[in-house]
Amino acid sequence: MTSTDPIANLATLIRCPSVTPAEGGALAALAAMLQPLGFAVERMVAREPGTPDIENLYARLGTGGPHLMFAGHTDVVPVGDEAAWTHGPFAAEIADGQMFGRGAVDMKGGIACFVAAVARHIGKHGAPDGSISFLITGDEEGPAVNGTVKLLEWAAARGEKWDACLVGEPTNPDALGDMIKIGRRGSVSGTVTVHGVQGHAAYPHLADNPVRGVIALARALMHPPFDAGTADFQPSNLEVTTIDVGNRATNVIPAKASAGFNIRFNDAWSAETVMAEIVRRLDAAARDETLRPGRPPIRYHIAWAERPSHVFLTRDDRLIASLSGAVAAVTGRQPALSTTGGTSDARFIKDYCPVVEFGLVGQTMHMVDERVALADLGTLTDIYETFIARWFGDARS
Amino acid sequence: MTSTDPIANLATLIRCPSVTPAEGGALAALAAMLQPLGFAVERMVAREPGTPDIENLYARLGTGGPHLMFAGHTDVVPVGDEAAWTHGPFAAEIADGQMFGRGAVDMKGGIACFVAAVARHIGKHGAPDGSISFLITGDEEGPAVNGTVKLLEWAAARGEKWDACLVGEPTNPDALGDMIKIGRRGSVSGTVTVHGVQGHAAYPHLADNPVRGVIALARALMHPPFDAGTADFQPSNLEVTTIDVGNRATNVIPAKASAGFNIRFNDAWSAETVMAEIVRRLDAAARDETLRPGRPPIRYHIAWAERPSHVFLTRDDRLIASLSGAVAAVTGRQPALSTTGGTSDARFIKDYCPVVEFGLVGQTMHMVDERVALADLGTLTDIYETFIARWFGDARS
Ligand SMILES: [Zn+2]
Ligand SMILES: [Zn+2]
Repeated sequence: MTSTDPIANLATLIRCPSVTPAEGGALAALAAMLQPLGFAVERMVAREPGTPDIENLYARLGTGGPHLMFAGHTDVVPVGDEAAWTHGPFAAEIADGQMFGRGAVDMKGGIACFVAAVARHIGKHGAPDGSISFLITGDEEGPAVNGTVKLLEWAAARGEKWDACLVGEPTNPDALGDMIKIGRRGSVSGTVTVHGVQGHAAYPHLADNPVRGVIALARALMHPPFDAGTADFQPSNLEVTTIDVGNRATNVIPAKASAGFNIRFNDAWSAETVMAEIVRRLDAAARDETLRPGRPPIRYHIAWAERPSHVFLTRDDRLIASLSGAVAAVTGRQPALSTTGGTSDARFIKDYCPVVEFGLVGQTMHMVDERVALADLGTLTDIYETFIARWFGDARS
Repeated sequence: MTSTDPIANLATLIRCPSVTPAEGGALAALAAMLQPLGFAVERMVAREPGTPDIENLYARLGTGGPHLMFAGHTDVVPVGDEAAWTHGPFAAEIADGQMFGRGAVDMKGGIACFVAAVARHIGKHGAPDGSISFLITGDEEGPAVNGTVKLLEWAAARGEKWDACLVGEPTNPDALGDMIKIGRRGSVSGTVTVHGVQGHAAYPHLADNPVRGVIALARALMHPPFDAGTADFQPSNLEVTTIDVGNRATNVIPAKASAGFNIRFNDAWSAETVMAEIVRRLDAAARDETLRPGRPPIRYHIAWAERPSHVFLTRDDRLIASLSGAVAAVTGRQPALSTTGGTSDARFIKDYCPVVEFGLVGQTMHMVDERVALADLGTLTDIYETFIARWFGDARS
């Protein structure tokens, strides 16, 4: 059964040019690996006005519990400057013990290894006493409107229930075994617009310079820090990512100024409390006269970005112990249980079942010459296989 | 001699559509008023690659000293929304005791009154014992490259020397007699660009957000105030007139951010010392870690705008006393001797001779329905005529 070889699985997937929103043959290739293993494979197309249709895949082996989900995506980011690649981004060429190609680590490699791990498990022990499913989207790197969220809703509406989920995104900063992600900070974005009064720079008292206002507000958003971190999380951090006025005339005081920001917040906050704190800071800074002596409060409004990402922390001991034990058994290293970094689709899955993330080393993701060490593919397959055995063993106990 | 009537003079000038850079017949009309009075009129065309050719005028009556110059411009700003004008902007129509038209106060009205004042003086006393000249440009409201600066250089190269200058710009905020300008603040502009390190908003420690830097620098430019004013001048004032990043991705920390600023500085400073103070503030703020704890100094560079305007204060007692005495004698009001407001072409003239400014009420300048009270034209003519008599009387004494 060829799908026991993660290198062959990955070569097949990389050769499918599945740049979001194109399916590129990747989901069909995955289906062709899973069906011989006994999976019931379903393809679900998600549609939303104003976005491209997206193909997704859900495959399940077994009907009973416990039920382990593996989640991920076959879509990849664009190749960038194709001429700068040492090997073709969709060629899956091997050189110096590494396989080159877009998606090698993010995250066709993780899928290739999990397929191989399941195939090996079945080869040795038969199908597990329970169910394994693959929940794979083609819209993680794009707008993510027709991806994991809809696929979860679709599956749940059909009665699917899961006991645990492993997301195969690249989680290791430097070497395989570094880090399991057991939670994610939340994220809220918004834009603050300050309304001033336009005028001539020589008559500032007749005008109200909104740049003074936006500096005061933007500064108050970033200082002081929101917290010093929690037991499980880094400090919350807010970055003002842009300020824009667009005034070309140096002798003119402009009419308005805006600042865009993003905060990554930990479990000391909810999206609601962090938004309230942002408003509290803005209202306080609006009355600060340091830059606007004798002036009335800054007039501003805030526009929140569409949907906040909620913070979460997975506390499923069995899931975490099975995975960290597998990492330690295969690599001899104790992985950090981390909540650092950006958001991932795990933030949607946590509403359905406990979720953790572990995959390859992320260093070359989204870069030219994205590549994975062949040795890492072997090691990750061993880890996944050991994890499957431990989790079902534990789950049965 | 019709040119004794400021209303007729102004109607003639308004009917010349001399929107910068068009001469529009305005200088020709002025020449036609001055030649019958005995003025030797010369037309000088200034050329500079990349700018339109500009017509200018220099006219002198008399050959000996003392030599009084009247300076101004016949070009006008565009009419804006012509449909919004109550009377045609080039029609010089009279309604409710006011003459409507573009340039009525800025500053064809001032020219019309000075011509009438000279004509009346000659009619009563003959030509003054000395010289009177008109230095009139067609490029004050535009790029000002081919205007007063070149006209002064051209005349000086021909041996012209002046003892005093009156600029006829509208200087009165509310009523004729409010204000004589005896100096102007200097002006310096520049752009500060902060160089950071681009990155992902979830990994701020791997990036260096230039928005933090630009906020720290822009704030230090505006706070604390540069000074509290001097005996003759308002406080110096710096406005950051724009901040620009242009980052559309809320999850991305941008690579750079820039801030444009303009300072109006008083006689506690020179352009050189104020620029040095700006650099001192930037360097100090670059080391401030409030918004960037534990980070190396902010990396920035500053680009100064082309040419600073130098601060000046006219201390010619005879000139100021003749003019303020004339205002008081005609209006019964003691005009403020002011240095407020923006820059004017007086900043160039002060390198050749003492210069003051006095003209009409500026309220409608550059606006739709720019207009002047006919009574003000009579009063200003009286003031100018009295000033001429007093200045030449004083000058001979
Ligand atoms: Zn990914
Ligand atoms: Zn003017």
